[in-house]
Amino acid sequence: MPPADVGPLLSGLTPDEIRTVIELLFRQHRAARALRELPHEMLPQVFDAVTDQRLADVIGRLEIDDLLELVDFIPEDRRSDVVERLPADRRYELTKAELYPESSAGRAMTTSFIALDEKMTAQEAIDSIRAAGNEDESILYLYVIDDQSCLSGVIPIRRLVAAPPEREIRDLMIPDPVSVSAESDREEVAHTVARYDLLAIPVTDIDNRMLGVITVDDVIDVITEEATEDMYHLAGLSEEDRVFVPATRSVRKRVPWMFLNLAAAFLSATVVGLFERTIEEMVALAIFMPVIAQMGGSSGSQALTVITRGIALGEIEFSSGLRAVGKEFAVGLSVGVLTGGAAGLAAYLWLGNPVLGTALFLAMVSTMAIAGLMGASVPLILKALHQDPALGSGVIVIAINDAFSFFSFLGIATLLLNRVG
Amino acid sequence: MPPADVGPLLSGLTPDEIRTVIELLFRQHRAARALRELPHEMLPQVFDAVTDQRLADVIGRLEIDDLLELVDFIPEDRRSDVVERLPADRRYELTKAELYPESSAGRAMTTSFIALDEKMTAQEAIDSIRAAGNEDESILYLYVIDDQSCLSGVIPIRRLVAAPPEREIRDLMIPDPVSVSAESDREEVAHTVARYDLLAIPVTDIDNRMLGVITVDDVIDVITEEATEDMYHLAGLSEEDRVFVPATRSVRKRVPWMFLNLAAAFLSATVVGLFERTIEEMVALAIFMPVIAQMGGSSGSQALTVITRGIALGEIEFSSGLRAVGKEFAVGLSVGVLTGGAAGLAAYLWLGNPVLGTALFLAMVSTMAIAGLMGASVPLILKALHQDPALGSGVIVIAINDAFSFFSFLGIATLLLNRVG
Repeated sequence: MPPADVGPLLSGLTPDEIRTVIELLFRQHRAARALRELPHEMLPQVFDAVTDQRLADVIGRLEIDDLLELVDFIPEDRRSDVVERLPADRRYELTKAELYPESSAGRAMTTSFIALDEKMTAQEAIDSIRAAGNEDESILYLYVIDDQSCLSGVIPIRRLVAAPPEREIRDLMIPDPVSVSAESDREEVAHTVARYDLLAIPVTDIDNRMLGVITVDDVIDVITEEATEDMYHLAGLSEEDRVFVPATRSVRKRVPWMFLNLAAAFLSATVVGLFERTIEEMVALAIFMPVIAQMGGSSGSQALTVITRGIALGEIEFSSGLRAVGKEFAVGLSVGVLTGGAAGLAAYLWLGNPVLGTALFLAMVSTMAIAGLMGASVPLILKALHQDPALGSGVIVIAINDAFSFFSFLGIATLLLNRVG
Repeated sequence: MPPADVGPLLSGLTPDEIRTVIELLFRQHRAARALRELPHEMLPQVFDAVTDQRLADVIGRLEIDDLLELVDFIPEDRRSDVVERLPADRRYELTKAELYPESSAGRAMTTSFIALDEKMTAQEAIDSIRAAGNEDESILYLYVIDDQSCLSGVIPIRRLVAAPPEREIRDLMIPDPVSVSAESDREEVAHTVARYDLLAIPVTDIDNRMLGVITVDDVIDVITEEATEDMYHLAGLSEEDRVFVPATRSVRKRVPWMFLNLAAAFLSATVVGLFERTIEEMVALAIFMPVIAQMGGSSGSQALTVITRGIALGEIEFSSGLRAVGKEFAVGLSVGVLTGGAAGLAAYLWLGNPVLGTALFLAMVSTMAIAGLMGASVPLILKALHQDPALGSGVIVIAINDAFSFFSFLGIATLLLNRVG
């Protein structure tokens, strides 16, 4: 059974059955890979079912990046006991990996790779692969190291196999391969790998010495997680608030953001409160408040989505940001003129009130133009301030939009009424 | 220069300079790969700069999946002329690939792979790789075919290299490899590759005969595009409406959806209109309309995001869908009680009106519970109907939420006023 299929199997079992399956699994050689593939919610149950020694034996077989990730899920009171039981060399590697910043390349890389000397022949290189044994079949590239132990080239294993046996590595390798530094953010690494269609990328230190490799399966995980994070942040959700997280935990995660949202909503309420007398004079204004709010909100979230995704995909540099903001403003304005014209006309025909129709038209045009402007510029400003462009921009844009939409609609109506009246 | 860097270079040049660079590029052997990496917006300019024959020469060197994609971007009046100038075998392959459904595995696969016989030895297999030449260095797995030319196993190239030369392929291969059918959707293919951490996946026909291979770099593109699509659909955007698409095109794409949105907003306006007399009686109700609408809207979009993303990541089966809906209802209700309690109290203290405070509290609880229910069930229902869960669910959820929120708030206020009054 492929390791990735163990999780779905376990989720259908009772706790006792899970214990039995885990017992069986841990006696086999493949437990380490299965553990790596398990959904994180299941790990506590699995850890409970085994002793510290057995757990250490199994996770000790993982590559360092997977080990690092799993250790975080061991309950705190057992963690140091389990780590102490790891083989000394793994413990040392673990300590070293933990020195790299959170979500950096240094934490995501595996340190098992094959380094070749520039002066080897193809046949010697193939022999060294044979000697390294069979353990890691996912090796795709061999890395070439020069006299100063700096990374000088890369050879796809296929090229090595197809080459004449006596050819020198120096003549076979692709020189100056794309690499990333151990401190670079994993999102940046993912972009680089995707952009150059790589299957693995070497990680180097400041002197271009080879430290490890990040493979494409990790990159896929990063790309998927980053997309989830952006979608979640735009809706004001925390990453951990997944479909089957217990409801109590989801509530705890959502409540703070919803109180922030409530505060923003009360700002809009205050704006409406300023115009209480105008609404008293013309109650029909209240009828169209939902129209202006919803159209402004949709325009804002469209601009926000286009720009946030554009930033995530690396389509927007700061210099072209201004152009993007200008475009979203123009689009908001144009769509505002078209839909605002229709809405104003409909309101006029429905209630026969020209003041209402005019106010609705003018307010929709200005609200949707401002929504485009805000939706585009807030994430760009957050990015320029080195913040996550998606996080918080939703609530800021909604708050500004809503308050502005009521201010413009009721303000314009007040001016018109005073002039007409 | 890596092919992926040609695009950014070109975007900074004048049309004349672009023409020169393309001329130079098309004289080289690497033009095909550079073309594949260009952003799609740039293709028309590039195609304009070259003759049909030269274009056919260059794109004829692409793998079939890339060729298929590029041909779609050739202006219609030139397309058949260019295709006619392709080598006969490529033309045949192209026609065959076009028979597969849109966004199926059959259209995304490359047909260049190395098939081995079960009875070969490791050394014979290595010799056959040498014989196949150097052209495709991205080959990672070799596929093993049995007597009926069915796919029977796979060997990572590294395992072959490390194996004793006289070992038989039959004993080295991983039997029954994970594969996908040529008709399966590319999104499903991407899930499978990500789930089993594969670098390439074989594509087979209904009789398990090997047709081609999809590599992980294509899978990364699919994952990125699908995430963009979901985010865009949730905000009511079309996929083509990117950051730097001309404003006029964005307007054309957004206007139809915004008119739909306007119709939904008028539904809410109609609901408010039903309660015109109640608002006349208590204008302060209008002040809190933005609060109820915004809190309901946020709850709905949170549930919608969690469920849509859960569906995209394959976390929700239909059977567990009901549980997810129940959870989102409970979360909406709980967050509604907490924030609604605070909002009701604040409204009471602000305006000293107990009817207003009570109506706001009760309406927020019911609105946010319903928002959770709708936000969770609409995408699941769309999915059960084999529709895109993200497309349209935004407008449906907003429309229901908004109308319901005003109905409950103003309705409850009317009941309370009649009872009190």
